[in-house]
Amino acid sequence: MQAHLLSIGTELVIGQTVDTNAPWLAQRLAEMGIECTRQVTVGDDRQAIATAVSAAADEADVLIATGGLGPTLDDLTRFAVADVLGAELAIDEASLAALAAFFAARRRAMPEANRVQALIPRGATPLANACGTAPGIHAPHRRAAMFFLPGVPSEMRAMFENEVRPRLAGRTGGRTIVQHTLHTFGLPESVLGEQIADLMRPDRNPHVGTSAADLVISIRINAAGADAAEARRLAAEDADEIRRRLGSAVFGEQGETLAEAVGRLLLASGRTVSTAESCTGGLVAKRLTDVSGSSGYFGQGFVTYANEAKTRLLAVPAELIARHGAVSREVAEAMAVTCRRFSGTDYAISTTGIAGPTGGTAEKPVGLVYLGLATETGCAVRELRLGETLAREAIRDRTAKLALNLLRLALLGQ
Amino acid sequence: MQAHLLSIGTELVIGQTVDTNAPWLAQRLAEMGIECTRQVTVGDDRQAIATAVSAAADEADVLIATGGLGPTLDDLTRFAVADVLGAELAIDEASLAALAAFFAARRRAMPEANRVQALIPRGATPLANACGTAPGIHAPHRRAAMFFLPGVPSEMRAMFENEVRPRLAGRTGGRTIVQHTLHTFGLPESVLGEQIADLMRPDRNPHVGTSAADLVISIRINAAGADAAEARRLAAEDADEIRRRLGSAVFGEQGETLAEAVGRLLLASGRTVSTAESCTGGLVAKRLTDVSGSSGYFGQGFVTYANEAKTRLLAVPAELIARHGAVSREVAEAMAVTCRRFSGTDYAISTTGIAGPTGGTAEKPVGLVYLGLATETGCAVRELRLGETLAREAIRDRTAKLALNLLRLALLGQ
Repeated sequence: MQAHLLSIGTELVIGQTVDTNAPWLAQRLAEMGIECTRQVTVGDDRQAIATAVSAAADEADVLIATGGLGPTLDDLTRFAVADVLGAELAIDEASLAALAAFFAARRRAMPEANRVQALIPRGATPLANACGTAPGIHAPHRRAAMFFLPGVPSEMRAMFENEVRPRLAGRTGGRTIVQHTLHTFGLPESVLGEQIADLMRPDRNPHVGTSAADLVISIRINAAGADAAEARRLAAEDADEIRRRLGSAVFGEQGETLAEAVGRLLLASGRTVSTAESCTGGLVAKRLTDVSGSSGYFGQGFVTYANEAKTRLLAVPAELIARHGAVSREVAEAMAVTCRRFSGTDYAISTTGIAGPTGGTAEKPVGLVYLGLATETGCAVRELRLGETLAREAIRDRTAKLALNLLRLALLGQ
Repeated sequence: MQAHLLSIGTELVIGQTVDTNAPWLAQRLAEMGIECTRQVTVGDDRQAIATAVSAAADEADVLIATGGLGPTLDDLTRFAVADVLGAELAIDEASLAALAAFFAARRRAMPEANRVQALIPRGATPLANACGTAPGIHAPHRRAAMFFLPGVPSEMRAMFENEVRPRLAGRTGGRTIVQHTLHTFGLPESVLGEQIADLMRPDRNPHVGTSAADLVISIRINAAGADAAEARRLAAEDADEIRRRLGSAVFGEQGETLAEAVGRLLLASGRTVSTAESCTGGLVAKRLTDVSGSSGYFGQGFVTYANEAKTRLLAVPAELIARHGAVSREVAEAMAVTCRRFSGTDYAISTTGIAGPTGGTAEKPVGLVYLGLATETGCAVRELRLGETLAREAIRDRTAKLALNLLRLALLGQ
């Protein structure tokens, strides 16, 4: 079974908003053994929507479209669907009642503009919206089962789970695809690719591919089997082989983040960490606490963005900063060592650097960062030169990842 | 002029990676007056790539494709382009020399696998890669000027600026589109839509549309004019009118974030802020320091995730936590007031709440958050009930935005 996704919204096609709905839906479909082979994005244009819907109805078994079901004048999906189906729109009384109930529960009058959201093409099925106003629309058309969902991610996700997943289950037949992904850090993609080249042959099952995103290189294993057990076994065999070849470069799997991997190792070893951040300004602590249950190993962190804050909160001697500069090996070490002592943790991470785009000099260019990792035996400091052309956001992101990876390797005894 | 974008990569079409290249390219094209009307994503499948390229060559004036130019076996774009052009691939000596130079500069031997990256269809033009290994490919085909760029965002962006933008400039003719976007916080989309319904008529110039993303509602004004000056004037007139109608709900424009808007107001008033974070775990400080120049108003922050840390770093009485719980109005107030005093700032923001997915109770459910804002005249505490079904990440994101907006309104005297 093949699925196409259609994302509708001028804000998407002109690049104002990054579409997270299509990736989320593709993942859910893959879990069900439905392969997503094409994603299309068009603007709030009735003709463009209708053309894309019509093409998908001929080429795919399933079409899931998102967006354009809101109450404003640029929400045109329902009209385009009616065009494609050759059906007229009519108020669906159950949907109108649900809309009225939504506003009543919030003690607000229903704006007249929301009434249009109860318009459904005759013959199509409305899909209930558990957390918003726009009902979805379901209709079969030519080859495809078509689903039109709201664009607001929380509403879309709930509607997929409640209304779409049950309708798709049972249509997926016997052959099962299992997807298993490993995430690596620290090996260049071409080196990694050479080490697993034999597993990446296009005609092989499982199909193995790599993708790089901001220093993390992921290895995707898609295994097809006569049933789920066989597919899982094939995927697990490849995963084991890749882990054996790449060693500690593999930090996690199935979407696990570096922060989650670090948290898992901290919990397993009963150890704790604290943070002292300058250039990352709270990002390392934020990443650590992205993880539910992080209170088991993270209790406190310092954001010492100003020199004065480094002295006041972390007792970094003003004289040390004056001599070496705030962006220096010495200050990174002092921050980490004191943070560890003040916090009573097994480890402390420190960051100090020039995130740019301004503030760089010939001697200390944008992208120069010192990472400290204090442990019971001392403090390792790593100098990073991330490049003057990298954006501020990327410098901070990479610094945080490299800091977490430094802690990860320490927890692995490396 | 109309452009289509094509994103190539199995990791994209199966939803493992969110595509940020297409939005970035669409924005750059819009700035040049080239309207992006369609984005397509396909996997690493030679036939699917060729079909999509061929369709775009008939329907668009410009096609920009990204991805599939890497050195591994699943990088098939160059082969698909050769199929569409009916041309064979040949080693481009200049590209091979650039590849060799790339590795020599890094004192590494060039892996044999990278050699394939110098293969260019005969008759096509290679595009230099300033920061990576894969050269791009440029060729005219039927209606379209086609450009194939690497998928790694930093390489793609540099190649667009250096190689694509100069080739597109001058092709864009007279009519100019200017895009102006306003960002709002705090008004529901339907209420906002009713207040500017007359401006949102589909046949009107400028074209005005709205989109919602995680509490921020953006209003997009696309103005067409005979020249840039006319388009800019039309867009500015609409922006002024919308600002007049929506008042302080409009916090910024042209991609400005809440943190940037807050930073602008802090700088203008010469005021400073510090942070004391529990449930957001550093996110508010991170958002503030996302902004280049934030050292002008932000010097330090505390991440007090554990109760003990609240007492140790912020002198919140253990007895107060025991009596009211860490997630309480009283603790939020104590955190903010002490943070402000310890930091010597004009304002201090505090957060304490239950970000979930675990830790909620009937009395204090997931999504219950207290935000504190200490000022010279006292401390305001706001209770948020963000809903038990919201994901941890969304609860933290909304808490950080609502905290920044509270500070923004205070800076506006509200």
